[in-house]
Amino acid sequence: MAEVGKREVRVDAFDKATGRTKYYEDLMPRDALYVRIKHSTIAHGFVKSVDKSAAEAIPGVVKVLTCFDVPEHPFPTAGHPWSMDPGHQDVADRHLLNRHVRYYGDDVAVVIAENEVAAMQGVRALQVEYEELPLVLDAQEAMKPGAPQLHEAFPNNILKHTDMKKGDYQAAIREPGLIKVEGWYDTPTVQHCHIENHGCFAYEENGRITVVASTQIPHIIRRVVGQALGRPWSDIRVVKPYIGGGFGNKQDALYEPLCAWCSTQVQGRCVRIDCSREETFVSNRVRHAIRFHIVSWLRPDGTFAARKVELFSNQGAYASHGHSIVAKAMGSFPQHYPCDNMECDAWTVFTNRPAAGAMRGYGMPQASFADEANVEDCAKAVGMDPLAFRMQNVMPQGYEDGFSHNVNYDDSFRQCLEAGKKYIDYDRKVAEFAKDTGPIRRGIGMATFWYNTAVYPISLETSSNRMQLNLDGSVTMQCGETEIGQGADTVYAQMAADVVGLGDYRRVHVVSCQDTDITPTGLGAYASRQTYVAGFSIRQTGLLLKEKILDYAGKLTRQAVYNMDIVDGSIVRTTDGKVLMSLSELAMHAQYNPNDSQHITAESTYTIRNNAYSFGCTFAEVEVDIPMCKVTLKDIINVHDCGRLVNPALAEAQVHGGMSMAIGYGLSEQLLFDEKTGKPLNNNLLDYKLSTIMDHPHLEAQFVENAEPTSAFGTKALGEPPACSGAPAIRNAIYNATGVAIDQDPITPHVLFRRFTEEGLIRD
Amino acid sequence: MAEVGKREVRVDAFDKATGRTKYYEDLMPRDALYVRIKHSTIAHGFVKSVDKSAAEAIPGVVKVLTCFDVPEHPFPTAGHPWSMDPGHQDVADRHLLNRHVRYYGDDVAVVIAENEVAAMQGVRALQVEYEELPLVLDAQEAMKPGAPQLHEAFPNNILKHTDMKKGDYQAAIREPGLIKVEGWYDTPTVQHCHIENHGCFAYEENGRITVVASTQIPHIIRRVVGQALGRPWSDIRVVKPYIGGGFGNKQDALYEPLCAWCSTQVQGRCVRIDCSREETFVSNRVRHAIRFHIVSWLRPDGTFAARKVELFSNQGAYASHGHSIVAKAMGSFPQHYPCDNMECDAWTVFTNRPAAGAMRGYGMPQASFADEANVEDCAKAVGMDPLAFRMQNVMPQGYEDGFSHNVNYDDSFRQCLEAGKKYIDYDRKVAEFAKDTGPIRRGIGMATFWYNTAVYPISLETSSNRMQLNLDGSVTMQCGETEIGQGADTVYAQMAADVVGLGDYRRVHVVSCQDTDITPTGLGAYASRQTYVAGFSIRQTGLLLKEKILDYAGKLTRQAVYNMDIVDGSIVRTTDGKVLMSLSELAMHAQYNPNDSQHITAESTYTIRNNAYSFGCTFAEVEVDIPMCKVTLKDIINVHDCGRLVNPALAEAQVHGGMSMAIGYGLSEQLLFDEKTGKPLNNNLLDYKLSTIMDHPHLEAQFVENAEPTSAFGTKALGEPPACSGAPAIRNAIYNATGVAIDQDPITPHVLFRRFTEEGLIRD
Repeated sequence: MAEVGKREVRVDAFDKATGRTKYYEDLMPRDALYVRIKHSTIAHGFVKSVDKSAAEAIPGVVKVLTCFDVPEHPFPTAGHPWSMDPGHQDVADRHLLNRHVRYYGDDVAVVIAENEVAAMQGVRALQVEYEELPLVLDAQEAMKPGAPQLHEAFPNNILKHTDMKKGDYQAAIREPGLIKVEGWYDTPTVQHCHIENHGCFAYEENGRITVVASTQIPHIIRRVVGQALGRPWSDIRVVKPYIGGGFGNKQDALYEPLCAWCSTQVQGRCVRIDCSREETFVSNRVRHAIRFHIVSWLRPDGTFAARKVELFSNQGAYASHGHSIVAKAMGSFPQHYPCDNMECDAWTVFTNRPAAGAMRGYGMPQASFADEANVEDCAKAVGMDPLAFRMQNVMPQGYEDGFSHNVNYDDSFRQCLEAGKKYIDYDRKVAEFAKDTGPIRRGIGMATFWYNTAVYPISLETSSNRMQLNLDGSVTMQCGETEIGQGADTVYAQMAADVVGLGDYRRVHVVSCQDTDITPTGLGAYASRQTYVAGFSIRQTGLLLKEKILDYAGKLTRQAVYNMDIVDGSIVRTTDGKVLMSLSELAMHAQYNPNDSQHITAESTYTIRNNAYSFGCTFAEVEVDIPMCKVTLKDIINVHDCGRLVNPALAEAQVHGGMSMAIGYGLSEQLLFDEKTGKPLNNNLLDYKLSTIMDHPHLEAQFVENAEPTSAFGTKALGEPPACSGAPAIRNAIYNATGVAIDQDPITPHVLFRRFTEEGLIRD
Repeated sequence: MAEVGKREVRVDAFDKATGRTKYYEDLMPRDALYVRIKHSTIAHGFVKSVDKSAAEAIPGVVKVLTCFDVPEHPFPTAGHPWSMDPGHQDVADRHLLNRHVRYYGDDVAVVIAENEVAAMQGVRALQVEYEELPLVLDAQEAMKPGAPQLHEAFPNNILKHTDMKKGDYQAAIREPGLIKVEGWYDTPTVQHCHIENHGCFAYEENGRITVVASTQIPHIIRRVVGQALGRPWSDIRVVKPYIGGGFGNKQDALYEPLCAWCSTQVQGRCVRIDCSREETFVSNRVRHAIRFHIVSWLRPDGTFAARKVELFSNQGAYASHGHSIVAKAMGSFPQHYPCDNMECDAWTVFTNRPAAGAMRGYGMPQASFADEANVEDCAKAVGMDPLAFRMQNVMPQGYEDGFSHNVNYDDSFRQCLEAGKKYIDYDRKVAEFAKDTGPIRRGIGMATFWYNTAVYPISLETSSNRMQLNLDGSVTMQCGETEIGQGADTVYAQMAADVVGLGDYRRVHVVSCQDTDITPTGLGAYASRQTYVAGFSIRQTGLLLKEKILDYAGKLTRQAVYNMDIVDGSIVRTTDGKVLMSLSELAMHAQYNPNDSQHITAESTYTIRNNAYSFGCTFAEVEVDIPMCKVTLKDIINVHDCGRLVNPALAEAQVHGGMSMAIGYGLSEQLLFDEKTGKPLNNNLLDYKLSTIMDHPHLEAQFVENAEPTSAFGTKALGEPPACSGAPAIRNAIYNATGVAIDQDPITPHVLFRRFTEEGLIRD
């Protein structure tokens, strides 16, 4: 029976529901030392000195280490696969602790102590003397001549600038009768707010270093720790147990390198670094605040003559994932609404803010917000219904991108939009809501997005897998692609069960914990790559395992290998359907044969040289109380074409989580900084307004299942897409309800009050 | 440079010397529940009832489980590989807890509690009511009609009887002029006394059970736990971290099954069982006390006309390794001193003593004691020098055993004896000591033994191995054969370095910890099999890995694979010796090639269908203070032919440890029981006289290095041999010093007083 496509219960459901699942803290040795970090209390400047004497006098303090003690060489932190081409390697601008501090919360020193209290007292007792420098928080300000400079190697704070040209923009805009629609669109700094803060512990063992970390990318962390410490990479062993979410924050080397180094400074004893929520907000990573400037030139029939897009990405203090995020955002425009004449420019700019890194969507929530706001404005400008405008202009069936060679095989965009339209009862409601003229008005908004699956051809895509036939006929599976809460282990089990012919996903034991010493190399959880990328190596390795099993079955049964198959966990003669033996019988005979003992395993690597488009849209229905500046989300639907669903229940759960993040992005979430000092103002879950179940209507998830023909199991990206189009759909719904276009996220009551006042809907 | 043959420092030396190595207790989750066992206080009888009320009332007690709660089906515990032939499967006579208790210390009930104190109080509070039965402690008594019966399925308590006949003994003894030498030889019950007591912990994870155990045989424990709990075997995951010795005691399922079952009775919470030293002595395993009856018929020229050997092995209460130990002891006689006419009979008999299992030597220390005592008596009887007698009669060069097909390729016995003779200055000292006639007399004694390597053809011999090329050019290696303190990981690293061509054993990272979910199947540490058996799979897998590396090197360098080799960690063109690239460069290019990414690994299973003879001898020099009944060991040498030495320093360390055990076996160690009650009298390290460094002279270890031609690296057994011939050498030295033959071990002052009195050397 096919397991792929079934709504199976998660393999880890029982343990997670009963609290038995083991996270890094559950694996912590009892005698681990506590490391606490002294963070800078200025946003920009130099550490002149650190007085350690008071801290060192505190009972229980084992060691104090400062920015004057760390290795000199810089290292990168982005969770990208290594490239042998130096030009494609990540920017190495990090030290383990910093003399040049570049944001409020930068890492200056650590106190290592026998207990948490001593470590915290030690941090408080450290006296740090700074030489303060002027600071800059805004990306465009930071690019101006005379702005404070963060990194010597990057003049004007520009980490990178790229552009893209298609056709002749300057010639195209001279076409007579064009309508110009121009806007500036601002997206906020937000944080991932995964349930489990980042943490890790490290110790030395036989001259090597083990790091157990809450990370999405164990194999990449191994390399970064090696780089940071200047050690051979296989001196480092990274273990990834279950983790409580990551959303991209943990697709970065966070405190693993510092933790590993601290262990080496206390004779290899186990040391632990556990981030508080406050540290997670500021000293981990945030989502890039990107400012967009879009100029669209439309013909009266609602087609695009030309478009120009400028993107200014606020990188914060350190490079992390750097330019790749805004580059992806920029790249979305020409494919989303193809247009013959385009000019795009993207800048990534250092500022004295927390470093921005990967976050669910990787530039696409920002791009979707700006593009779909501008497109809504365009529809209005030419007097078209926004849905009709999109149906006309969005990427057509058969579209192929010249770079990724992604193809829109099935007119997925329009199919998604049709599904959303039907669910939300679009025509009737649009007509009805148009009648609202009182203080409370209703509106429908929509937005679309597309998404790549994995990162080919930008970076390496490789996945390895090992399978082992157990004596009871079950199969154990290891791979480097990680379970981070999304349900990867469960879909891997379903896939493997189908390929090998086990008939039941419970006959696959996925080793959830990656250990870089022994787990086949994989790159980890990011870029919505897991089911797509791992699928290739699961199918390839599963077929190899099956071949070995049938080969041994041939020895035991004297039947021709080509006359046998594995069905529901048994060796079956295909010519007459006879069950010859169970997999358990085969495994037992193979293992315990004194003349030809076989421990049957298979292992292989698959190099993925494909990518695939996912598509989707959101329709949101809002009710806006204009005098109260209050938006109530009444209904919302996400429709996705992410190919074939391996497990519809888990797919829905992915969508629900992404929709929740999008609602927060659209209405409430924003990390704020004091403009004078750069100090974060709301880096806690009380003041930072994360969207919760209290803010949600029913979250409707629907799918258009167009099996991806390039994929091992018909799958393509689903992990990140649900977070992309929610915020602009809400923005457009508010626009359609009130006639007020709001070009920034989140659309808080403060923003609404200002804009409603500006537009005359509220008067003093 | 060849690594095999070098005195390299152990890979785990630094961590072990600095106390950083992690044993099972170091990995224990903080919230593990304590399981303490209620042991029977009678040696034989039935539990009528257990009153749990007082125990359950103790704060902290979570659960009390008794022999009335456990699964009904019996299971075996011996650490033997599974056999598909039911006739070769181990005797399943165990339950997790016992209603029919069969020795003083049997397991009756458990108390599971939040802390150790509550668990111990709970055990004390349990009220057990017994129906007592008569007991029997002696093997020959237990065989008599009317003796108390331990197991229904085994009448007269005989677990098994086997015999062996060669030639015609009855006819042969009628040859005129024969001299008859007859003796009864008694060996004691001793315990392994490894430093780390057995312990384990278990918990459920996603519906499966993990057991972390101090064991020698993780893959076998997985099977036994599965059997004991009636669960599919791959529901069980066994993890073996570093262990503090085992010596065969941990080649048995000890408390792993009970621990796993206890976890299932408390909703899968982690539970721990930690044996005390007192429990280790009695409720784990002991070495079989074997009584030998030997009748030798000699011609006047000192050749054997016929021999008859009877062996009575005291099995104790449960079968454990059962008859296989005395069978091995019996099998040693015809090969040790080949004789045309032999009759051997061996019985394994249940008694109300602790269960006997595997212990270093597996029957051979007992056989060597009895055989070498009898042979010494034979030499005396025909008036020959004992060394000359042995030189004449011991297994000759070219001898081939018809069953194992072992061959004595190099006249190893005589080469060992020659080396020992030279070191001990035999001729001069024998002449000089013969003059001693006072109260203090000196003597030289010797003894020999032979030993099989691994267990083919009796049982399955299989070993699997996985190697992985790391990005820094090092290799990670996993195998199921275990490091138990003997240095296995270090010799594996040396072997792998040589096979792959790494040039330095530090470029091999051996994964010391076995995890049955992922570690290639191996059988574990026993039967002195590790370097021999693992060697085959290391060489096979290393060659596979090398082939894959050179294949990829061919792609990168455009050179023919047959023109390349791996030398000192680099790819070398053999035609001109040019270094083409380092392994690190190759691994990096292979892993990060976006078009053909390879994570280079190799894995294979080798079915071993060979065995090999090891040989050796001990020469001991003693000074006996007759009035004080005190033996001082003045000098001792072990000479071994264990084939090629992978690491001479580790080989010496093995020998030193074995010699120490043999000294204790010869002079002081014996677990004593009250004859009325069967209660152990000295189950602690104060009253049990373990041999210590205070009892040792310099321990001289020498080797005759005849590389074994059947072996992957020329190696053969060394682990157990050093424990075999020490005790009889001491016995014979005392005999030669005093003229008093003592036919029991250990030769304590009490025994000497009795025997010296009997022989008239001491008078009242």
